[in-house]
Parts: sequence; C-alpha cells; structure tokens
Amino acid sequence: MTGKSAEGTQTRCGPEARSTRLRALLSDLGADSLLVSHLPNIRYLCGFSGSAALLLVERSKSTLFTDSRYTFQAREEVSGAQIRIAKKGILRAATETLRGRRRGFRVAYSATHMSVAEKRLLEAGAGVRWVADGNVVEKLRAVKDEEELIWIRKAALLISDVFRRTLPLIRPDVTELDLAAEIEHDIKRGGGSGPSFETIIASGPRSAWAHARPTSKLLRKSELVVLDQGAIIGGYCSDMTRTVHLGRASARAKSLYQAVRDAQQAGKQAIRPGATAGDVDRAARASLKTSQLDRYFTHSTGHGLGLEVHEMPRLGKSEATVLCKGMVLTVEPGVYLEGFGGIRIEDDVIVTANGCDDLTTAPRDFLEL
Amino acid sequence: MTGKSAEGTQTRCGPEARSTRLRALLSDLGADSLLVSHLPNIRYLCGFSGSAALLLVERSKSTLFTDSRYTFQAREEVSGAQIRIAKKGILRAATETLRGRRRGFRVAYSATHMSVAEKRLLEAGAGVRWVADGNVVEKLRAVKDEEELIWIRKAALLISDVFRRTLPLIRPDVTELDLAAEIEHDIKRGGGSGPSFETIIASGPRSAWAHARPTSKLLRKSELVVLDQGAIIGGYCSDMTRTVHLGRASARAKSLYQAVRDAQQAGKQAIRPGATAGDVDRAARASLKTSQLDRYFTHSTGHGLGLEVHEMPRLGKSEATVLCKGMVLTVEPGVYLEGFGGIRIEDDVIVTANGCDDLTTAPRDFLEL
Repeated sequence: MTGKSAEGTQTRCGPEARSTRLRALLSDLGADSLLVSHLPNIRYLCGFSGSAALLLVERSKSTLFTDSRYTFQAREEVSGAQIRIAKKGILRAATETLRGRRRGFRVAYSATHMSVAEKRLLEAGAGVRWVADGNVVEKLRAVKDEEELIWIRKAALLISDVFRRTLPLIRPDVTELDLAAEIEHDIKRGGGSGPSFETIIASGPRSAWAHARPTSKLLRKSELVVLDQGAIIGGYCSDMTRTVHLGRASARAKSLYQAVRDAQQAGKQAIRPGATAGDVDRAARASLKTSQLDRYFTHSTGHGLGLEVHEMPRLGKSEATVLCKGMVLTVEPGVYLEGFGGIRIEDDVIVTANGCDDLTTAPRDFLEL
Repeated sequence: MTGKSAEGTQTRCGPEARSTRLRALLSDLGADSLLVSHLPNIRYLCGFSGSAALLLVERSKSTLFTDSRYTFQAREEVSGAQIRIAKKGILRAATETLRGRRRGFRVAYSATHMSVAEKRLLEAGAGVRWVADGNVVEKLRAVKDEEELIWIRKAALLISDVFRRTLPLIRPDVTELDLAAEIEHDIKRGGGSGPSFETIIASGPRSAWAHARPTSKLLRKSELVVLDQGAIIGGYCSDMTRTVHLGRASARAKSLYQAVRDAQQAGKQAIRPGATAGDVDRAARASLKTSQLDRYFTHSTGHGLGLEVHEMPRLGKSEATVLCKGMVLTVEPGVYLEGFGGIRIEDDVIVTANGCDDLTTAPRDFLEL
C-alpha cells in the first residue's frame, strides 16, 4: 500500500490526500477510474455524508453524483470533487458521464457494493470496460490517518464514559429497552451523533444470544447482563461490550468471565504489525481451549472499525490480512451457553509499532452490581 | 394481486399467510422458488429480524439460512420456515441446498437486492435457472394486513405524542443535536425500539436542506425549524415532519406554510383506490404551482411505509402504481428556499375504501413557539 509512512500510519489527512493515494493504485487495478458506490467509501474519499450518491474517481478529477435533496449539503461537505446534481437518477447521470469517455475506458467497481440491477443499467448505458476494484478503498480505509484517529479515539472515550455513567442504572427491575434508551440518549448528550449500531442489552438466558435486540424483559437479580454499545462522533464509530452480574456471581460465572478475559488478553498480545488477522483469532481461541470453552465461542474475534462499525480486516480463523500500524480493531471473544447465559468482553485497540494500545477506557473487571 | 379481500386489505395475517400468498404468485413469475435476500422481505415472510440471512421459499416449504450468532433468536422468531445455521457462510449454505434441486429448477431473485458478487457465487455453485422476481414481495408488502396496521398505527401515534411532548423543548439556545437526542430518547421511553431514521432537525437557513443531519447549531429566535422524525415499534415505521417558527413568523413564512399545507391537503384529496401514485404527486405539485412555488418542491410527494421507512409505492410524478385500500403512505410536500429556509409538512395516511385516513395525530397548524 503506497502513501504510508515507514510505520504504516497514513500521514497526510483528509479526503483529497486519500483520493491521491487511491489514484496511485488505479494502474495496479488495470483501471482508468473507479466508480465508488459504497457510501462510507464516498464519504472517505470526498467528505459527502448523504444517503444517495455515486463517486467517479478519475486520474485527474473526481465527480460526485447526488440528487437535489443534497444540493446544499454537498456544496458544504464535498472537497476534491465536482458536484453533479442528477435530475433523472444518479445512476443515469453517472452513465451519461461514462458514455462521454473514450472507447475502452476502464472503470473499476465493487461487485460487493453494486447490485445486479445497477450493474445492468450501467453496462447497458455506457460502453466502458468494467474491472474488479479489489476492495481498494476498503484496504486504504483499514489504515487510519491522523484525522480519523482523532475521531475514533473520541468515539471510544465517549462510549467508555457512557458506560461508566450507565452503571448505576444497571439494576433489577429496569427493562433492557430502558437501559438501551438511556445509553443511546447519553451518547447524544455526550456529543455523539448517535449509536453506531442498535445497542444490545441481553440479560439472563438471553445473554446467550450473541446479537440480541433489547426487549421489555426486566433485569433480575443473579443474572448476567451483556451490554454491547458504540457511539458515532464525526462519522467514526466505537464498539464496546461489557458483561456484568446483578448481585453476587457464582463461581462458574466468575471462572467463565476470567476465561473470556484471558482470551481477550491473548488476542491483544497477538496483535502487532506483521501478524495476520488469523493469528489474533487463533490466539484468543487457543486460550479458551485451555478451559474447553472454545466450542462456545461462536463468532470471530473482532473486526476493523472506522466509518463503519464493521470494516476490514475481519479477525477470523483463516484471515491472511497482515496487520499494519494505524489499523483499528475490536477484540471481542465471548462464550455463549444456552440456558446459562453469555459473556463477551470487547475493546477497541489501535495497532502500534510494537503491539497495540487500548482505545477503550471502561473498566474490564467483572462487576457484581 | 391475489389473496386480498374485495376492498384490498390483506385479510389473513402473519408470516405464514404472507408466504402462502407469495407461493400463489410463483407461477406468474415462471419460478419454482424465490430466494429472498432483502432482510425486511425475510422478516415479512418468516418473522426473522436478524442482520444476516437468506430465505428460500419453495412451493411446499421455506428454509431460512442464517449464522450461529442467531441460533437462539431464529428459533424464537421464525414461523413457517426450517432454520439452517450456516457454518461456512450463508451464501454457501443456500448454494448447497439449491445444488440439491432438480435440473432446470427455477429460482426467482431480486436484482435490486442482490450484489453482483453474491449472484456470481450462487451462479457458480448451483446449476439452477435464475429469473427476475418482479419485486413480488415488495408489491405484497405495499398492502398491509391487519397485524401490520396495528403496529403502524401505534408507530404513527407514538411519534405524534413524542412531538407534542417535545414542543416545550423547541426554543432558542437548544442545539439541533440536543433536540434530536430528546426526541429519540422519548421514542424509546414511549415503547418504541428506536427512531425509524436519523432524526432531522434543521433550523434557520439549514432548514432549506431537505435531508439535513442535526448539528451543534443553536436554535435562534425568528428561525424556521424543520423536525422530521419517525419511530419503530414492533418492527414497523412511522415518518412525520413538522415545521415550526421560533417567535412571530413573517408574513412570507406564513404564506409559504399555508401553501405547503394546501399542497398536502391537495395530495391527500387525490388519494383513493384506483388513483395512481403519480396522481397524488401531481395534485400536490399543481397546488404549489398556483403560488409559483412548485419549482422549490425538489423531491417527490411521499412514499410507502411499513417494515421500511421507504417502501413501495413512491409518490413521484410519473409513477403508474395504482393505489389500493390498505396501503400506507406518507404525504410530505415541502418548499426549500436557499438563504431563507425550508418548510415541509408530512403525515402518514392509510388508503381507505373511498379516500384516506390520517394516522398521524400531531397538530398541523403553523406553530409560533
């Protein structure tokens, strides 16, 4: 990946520097341009945060296509791209622009982020050659620049503060939904633009659902409560899970918690530039295996974090992505025992020159509330 | 559309009745089955609300493919479909199932809701024939059944109540973000699972941005404030806009407001079974034209509403969709004058046998706060 400092962190900041880095990679793709359809990628490359757009990045210019709802917003947000307000559909406007390019003009695109219908319309309308984008923007995005890190640090700090302020509210006879509402409200009071995903509050046996939506179930004494929450600030996400116990925890709950905490520590210790994403996952899984708990760990160890709450790299068993300085990752092992409950501990970390640093500051001890 | 009562409203409720209605339409598509990839369509047809799934609806059975995060949730939520927990990817599991079907087995799919990459994987793995789904599920969803209407009515009532409770907070020196936070918190306090989209609060000149995100800008005296908000309850959405004025409004603001209100009334009066979506849009636009304001009305008049905040039909100028009893629509004309500000009024209505009924109960008068 070009455009990085020796240690990996992106040195020049902001949409225009990112577009410059992207342009340097177009030849490797065998492309003259990239048609960007994934909104977070568009935001990354030109600053536009609206909900409908296409961005065409060519060697010497970029063009943002959006619709009339976003005329003023685009003017305020966009840097390094011309703005085209499409009157008859964004896709059609982009098609018309591409039709004006020379024969054989090569356009890279993401097969993951373009629908079959969109591709058909573009193919029918513009006589260009389509090539795979190789997730080039997602790969650039995996290594954060300083401007991005400022926001991600804020987002991680904010959700840690929210958790600390929420602790007194985690008590019997509060509903999961009420607790989620308080957390999401506090994110906004704290300056965030909102939660980075629908807050997960899962208590008692429901804590064994790794992705449970909060319900009107009341929290009860002697239950585990999994709280998985994140904040968005400046467009950037945090993602943090804590598991607490209402009242005194059983020896079994304590030992499960310790096993998950050890697994998280093992995962973090495996993080360094040069290690692979798979190394981290295997380290966490191996740690749980020492107490025969690995079969209850039913998801991957973590994921990248930035403009999206799930981005590259995925910390899965067989992921070969090599970690670089400046990547931001979640480390979130968990165990889920049907009938008993679940425990997950999740922090956000940044990959440093020698290892990783925690961005999440909330306490990691097993809290008996 | 089959499976409707004489008046149009879907009579039998719930996922299994919906799947039955869908199965009756498979022959019209020239299909033996439908592979559903759009999550709201999956929820509609089998009740599953997780974030990763495919649903294969065949003539005599349905199969839901999801991953291990959702084992317990799927068991609790799904009706009328077998559950397959995919160990190596949902797409791969679906491909394997399709590979087991007879030669020439025809699978309908949505080109809009399937990515080029997903389609490629499915095509490579399963030797079946692919046919267009003609938005068959979206068309079924446009006409609500009684169970859905109960939730949509609740969602519309909830957001109306939230707006009434929010009124005392709409005052100078409150930030747009704080106001949005209070609204979203109150949605949850009122029993909603959350906002149906990121609440729009746009004050002063920013009110001319039809889709403005709330910012840290303070509300000021003598400003217009556009509040566009919606709630989700039981999975169903409401969507409502009100525009208020801080302090005494100018004659110009008042006359603009009245023009938008008249346009909304004209739009509602055009709604009845047999009218087209385009008729409604043209009626609202014609009303604004009488005061030369139609060129400031830069979006369509409304859209369907249900499990998604934007669904079929779109109330756009040249939309030919014929309205039926049981459809739920927003009616939301607006005018946006750069430098001056914007005004939008939006209600949710249900199409009745003779016209439409308001679901939104919040006051529509021009409030000077």
